Amino acid sequence: MRVAMLAPIAWSTPPAAYGPWEQVTSHLTEGLVKRGIDVTLFATATSRTAGKLVATTAAGYAEQEGQDAKVLEYLHISQVMGVANTFDIVHNQFDFMPLGYTPLLDTPMVTTIHGFSSDHIVPVYERYNDTTDYVSISDADRDERLDYIATVYNGVDTDQFTFNDQPGDYLLYFGRIHPEKGTAEAIAIARRAKKPLWIAGLIQDHDYYRDQVEPHIDGEQVRYLGNVGPRERDRILGNAYALLHPINFEEPFGLSVAESMVTGTPVIAFRRGSMPELIEDGKTGYLTDSVEGAVDLVSACGDLNRWEIAEVATDRFSVDRMVDSYIDVYQRILSR
Amino acid sequence: MRVAMLAPIAWSTPPAAYGPWEQVTSHLTEGLVKRGIDVTLFATATSRTAGKLVATTAAGYAEQEGQDAKVLEYLHISQVMGVANTFDIVHNQFDFMPLGYTPLLDTPMVTTIHGFSSDHIVPVYERYNDTTDYVSISDADRDERLDYIATVYNGVDTDQFTFNDQPGDYLLYFGRIHPEKGTAEAIAIARRAKKPLWIAGLIQDHDYYRDQVEPHIDGEQVRYLGNVGPRERDRILGNAYALLHPINFEEPFGLSVAESMVTGTPVIAFRRGSMPELIEDGKTGYLTDSVEGAVDLVSACGDLNRWEIAEVATDRFSVDRMVDSYIDVYQRILSR
Repeated sequence: MRVAMLAPIAWSTPPAAYGPWEQVTSHLTEGLVKRGIDVTLFATATSRTAGKLVATTAAGYAEQEGQDAKVLEYLHISQVMGVANTFDIVHNQFDFMPLGYTPLLDTPMVTTIHGFSSDHIVPVYERYNDTTDYVSISDADRDERLDYIATVYNGVDTDQFTFNDQPGDYLLYFGRIHPEKGTAEAIAIARRAKKPLWIAGLIQDHDYYRDQVEPHIDGEQVRYLGNVGPRERDRILGNAYALLHPINFEEPFGLSVAESMVTGTPVIAFRRGSMPELIEDGKTGYLTDSVEGAVDLVSACGDLNRWEIAEVATDRFSVDRMVDSYIDVYQRILSR
Repeated sequence: MRVAMLAPIAWSTPPAAYGPWEQVTSHLTEGLVKRGIDVTLFATATSRTAGKLVATTAAGYAEQEGQDAKVLEYLHISQVMGVANTFDIVHNQFDFMPLGYTPLLDTPMVTTIHGFSSDHIVPVYERYNDTTDYVSISDADRDERLDYIATVYNGVDTDQFTFNDQPGDYLLYFGRIHPEKGTAEAIAIARRAKKPLWIAGLIQDHDYYRDQVEPHIDGEQVRYLGNVGPRERDRILGNAYALLHPINFEEPFGLSVAESMVTGTPVIAFRRGSMPELIEDGKTGYLTDSVEGAVDLVSACGDLNRWEIAEVATDRFSVDRMVDSYIDVYQRILSR
């Protein structure tokens, strides 16, 4: 099976730091190559793969200044489309922009929808509903106007996470500092539960950080660790008493939620978006609708079986599971 | 001959007011239809044509707020590409974005390059140099990295302009108020030539207007008329002693320069971009390199034959001439 993997090009694949779509694309590509599948990765020249790399642009448009993102996108996508007929399947990880080509291609294209950046783009997906197969990253993220061939959860590289049965006593907030991610709610939950809160993540909304987060940081009750790398991430996730994920939006998939559970750390999340799919309520964590509800559940987390949490999560959210699922999708498309 | 005319969709075709690419596209479309050519115009639903209209979007992204320009562009372009094989030729008036499809199309595409918005986009044109035919809107606007099948000047609808052999005594500046268009230089020329200056055009650079233009406006020596409509445009162009066009950039084509000459009014322009092509020095106007040079030429304009100016301009820059030229381009492509 010859697969053309159309990566995003904001960042390299895999990304040096931030770049969730590129990260998932890399995990999938390398996983497929390990299974002996002939994968050509179309990505930035700064990318790395054990498969074949076709560099369509010198560097990602978010990596290097002075480039025109729109120009790079068009050149990138049209380069893949120009050779699509030399592959058995094209896997589009690049949002809606390649879809317009599908009526002109003989090679089938499968498109992973990593989330809808706005309601405006749904009509484009709708238009090409019959000429490409859509994969959702959670059932919650499905749009009823579209047909999907499967839901495939983003895979966690379980080698990067260590099971920890002897955690510390702090609660953890792990993610972008942004109102939709609920950093302020996490602080409120931890305060009322009388537990320390560690905060790790990129500051995306600086006003929000200054007004609602920074005033609470005292280095003891509330600590801010910045944007941490892979090793530190593993340590602070596995060592946490529980992860707090009080989101204020319909999150399509929560990678940190899956990662936390892989280390054995349960998650207390607001019941929105994909959370009811990711968390088995009362087994791998708890779902609630309010700060008060979350406070009440903190002590209950101590009763959960961390070994079981890790086992369930590894089974459902590993890269291996993701690769299995995509191979199944490819085979179903090719056998039609 | 079945022509698919791929219009820009910032505005309707023709535009209600501003929208130069849409205006040229409309002139060409209607001119082709008059010659009995089967033209399908792909444009906004707000567009009008005597040919067939396929509306790809309800309204232009610059006409109606709350739309995502990128989404509309993709839907628009891919809709044309999906039916390209039912036409003999596709005429792309839409910048570089449709080019990526050309390797996948059986129908030839001709692309009018209305100007390069930045140096970043030239590599896209370069990539598709062999799969589409480029038309430049002036020889001056050609990029040496690209091959061109022809230069076709933008056409002026001569019915909208009236020859005037008895002009007034004022000099005219007609165009966007912007440093690259030389509004301040026009004021300096008129002051030194001791003639009134009338200024007409959209204020594009508000700081420039406030600092360099507005302080000179006194309603007598220097008047600002705002952004004028077609009837007023005809009147003030035809009634001007001369048009001043002291540009500070390589302008690919100067529509107001052609329009002015059609009414018989000569043009004093800086020798940049397409000006030496548009103006016959000493016959339809004068070329110079400085404010001082322009001042010296003002009196010489009185000796030019306005009838001859209008005749030469109408012959070179009419819609009819543009339509002839494009039919020739289409036929050359189809006869290969």
